[in-house]
Amino acid sequence: MTRNPPGSEDALLARLVAQLGSLNGSVELGIGDDAAVLAGGWCTSLDLLVEDVHFRMRTTSAHDLGWKAIAVNLSDLAAMGAEPVCALVGLGMPAAIAPETLDELFAGFDACSSAYGAQIAGGDVSSAPVLTLAVTVFGRTERPARRDGAVPGDLVCVTGPLGGSRAGLELLEGLAVSLPERAVLIERHVRPVPLIAEGRILARTSHAMMDLSDGLATDARRLASASGVAVRIDLDRVPVQAGAERIAQAVGRAPGWFAAAGGEDYELVCALPRAAFELSELDLWEVGEIVDGPAGEIGFTGAGSDDPPRGFDHLLS
Amino acid sequence: MTRNPPGSEDALLARLVAQLGSLNGSVELGIGDDAAVLAGGWCTSLDLLVEDVHFRMRTTSAHDLGWKAIAVNLSDLAAMGAEPVCALVGLGMPAAIAPETLDELFAGFDACSSAYGAQIAGGDVSSAPVLTLAVTVFGRTERPARRDGAVPGDLVCVTGPLGGSRAGLELLEGLAVSLPERAVLIERHVRPVPLIAEGRILARTSHAMMDLSDGLATDARRLASASGVAVRIDLDRVPVQAGAERIAQAVGRAPGWFAAAGGEDYELVCALPRAAFELSELDLWEVGEIVDGPAGEIGFTGAGSDDPPRGFDHLLS
Repeated sequence: MTRNPPGSEDALLARLVAQLGSLNGSVELGIGDDAAVLAGGWCTSLDLLVEDVHFRMRTTSAHDLGWKAIAVNLSDLAAMGAEPVCALVGLGMPAAIAPETLDELFAGFDACSSAYGAQIAGGDVSSAPVLTLAVTVFGRTERPARRDGAVPGDLVCVTGPLGGSRAGLELLEGLAVSLPERAVLIERHVRPVPLIAEGRILARTSHAMMDLSDGLATDARRLASASGVAVRIDLDRVPVQAGAERIAQAVGRAPGWFAAAGGEDYELVCALPRAAFELSELDLWEVGEIVDGPAGEIGFTGAGSDDPPRGFDHLLS
Repeated sequence: MTRNPPGSEDALLARLVAQLGSLNGSVELGIGDDAAVLAGGWCTSLDLLVEDVHFRMRTTSAHDLGWKAIAVNLSDLAAMGAEPVCALVGLGMPAAIAPETLDELFAGFDACSSAYGAQIAGGDVSSAPVLTLAVTVFGRTERPARRDGAVPGDLVCVTGPLGGSRAGLELLEGLAVSLPERAVLIERHVRPVPLIAEGRILARTSHAMMDLSDGLATDARRLASASGVAVRIDLDRVPVQAGAERIAQAVGRAPGWFAAAGGEDYELVCALPRAAFELSELDLWEVGEIVDGPAGEIGFTGAGSDDPPRGFDHLLS
């Protein structure tokens, strides 16, 4: 059972946000969800990607990096059930960056934004000590899917197998495991897919939804915390990306533990009534349930639950 | 007479932007203005501030830095004639940053956003090798003031004296000049004021408008370039911040040259018909005119025009 760990991103943000005063009536949903919601159904989110924190240039192509910078932001729109409209791109870059690298990076921005109908509508460039990408995306929805509406009795479901991105990262970082799924696992890490269509469908029936950027263990806790409820996850029911069970074994973890801890899968997690789950046109995996209990309390059952997964935190890791 | 200098921000952006393909009908104005304009009158802009590129921690307080990060973005909304609604704040920070520094930084974000009615509605935090701030702001207007509508015969006007921020920076960087305006000049650099009310008034009658972030010499060229016209600036008519003429003298430049070259004043520059200039309720300074000629051609008259000012460029400087 864990809450906001001291020193974590969540703890820092909670402390800083508590100091902020200004409110504006055109902001319908502020800090604390995947995206802010403005009057007229506009959703917007900002993400930073920093070299040697979020990516290494020796393990990603510039094209894939450009794709990923847009994709992880569009995933926040997917989590709101929003349709992408546009993106702003802030680019901090070392003086030594090659012109071809910049061309590839922009080709990657363009490939992902074009694939999901988001126009690159502005941005900023600057020199910086390491490659730094700040992307803001905008989308629209008539019915934003928030993360704060889960109620006891809801099923906790995910849209696809987890752990693939983390397994791909382990392989990129040099873990010596030979397996047929190697390329697919690496692809899951360097070229994530924002689930825009799935998000729009789930927004109609979910009580709460978010995207899995920091791992199910962290993100399910955040969803429960926002909703004022507790959550239980059965690690034995977490769907594991094919091949990731081999990586889990190599690092000494149960497959479900590894899948629930690993971040950056960009699948969606939602809390929805059983009837909606059973009627859903999507393939969904039931991995746990929302229960009465302290807000944000998370409990695990299944293999590995004696040493619960934490998920990823950019400040603690 | 200068155009987009090779290797400059403008040249880089022009090359990269030419590669981008995707369009979305909800984007009414894309890359190339102070802010993008979305359906419903939403304006949005993103700016990066990188330690040791845009600021040094030994010459600014964290509170002033937080203020400035919001203010320079709100200034882009002012240049569109928009009313601020909210901001997203991306914060990359070194592991060694003190908690009190973060508290002050957030107090600065809050002070500026509260002063202009912008709610901080979201963001992201990450570790980073140097303090890195990425701010996106949103505002609304019924009538966006673009930078591409200037026509020959328009007067080029600014809303206030220039060169103060650059003079303050020279003092902060150690230039040994003793003068009574020292504190005011430094304040101009570390704590700029977004001219929201002035922007809303000027948007009604200007043919083109932008904010002066990179110096009149660069920004008037950009305005002319976007409008497909040429521009003439009379350096003898550029209003100079009190005290900045002493700094200009110390660095061997004519006051008007120094004021037109110095960036970060965040005054507004606009192209407007003479009748609108004469009837304006604002104090405006006429500094030049829009003329027929190659798009973006800029010419100078007055003291210092034999070695024309270039303005500031984050990649060339």
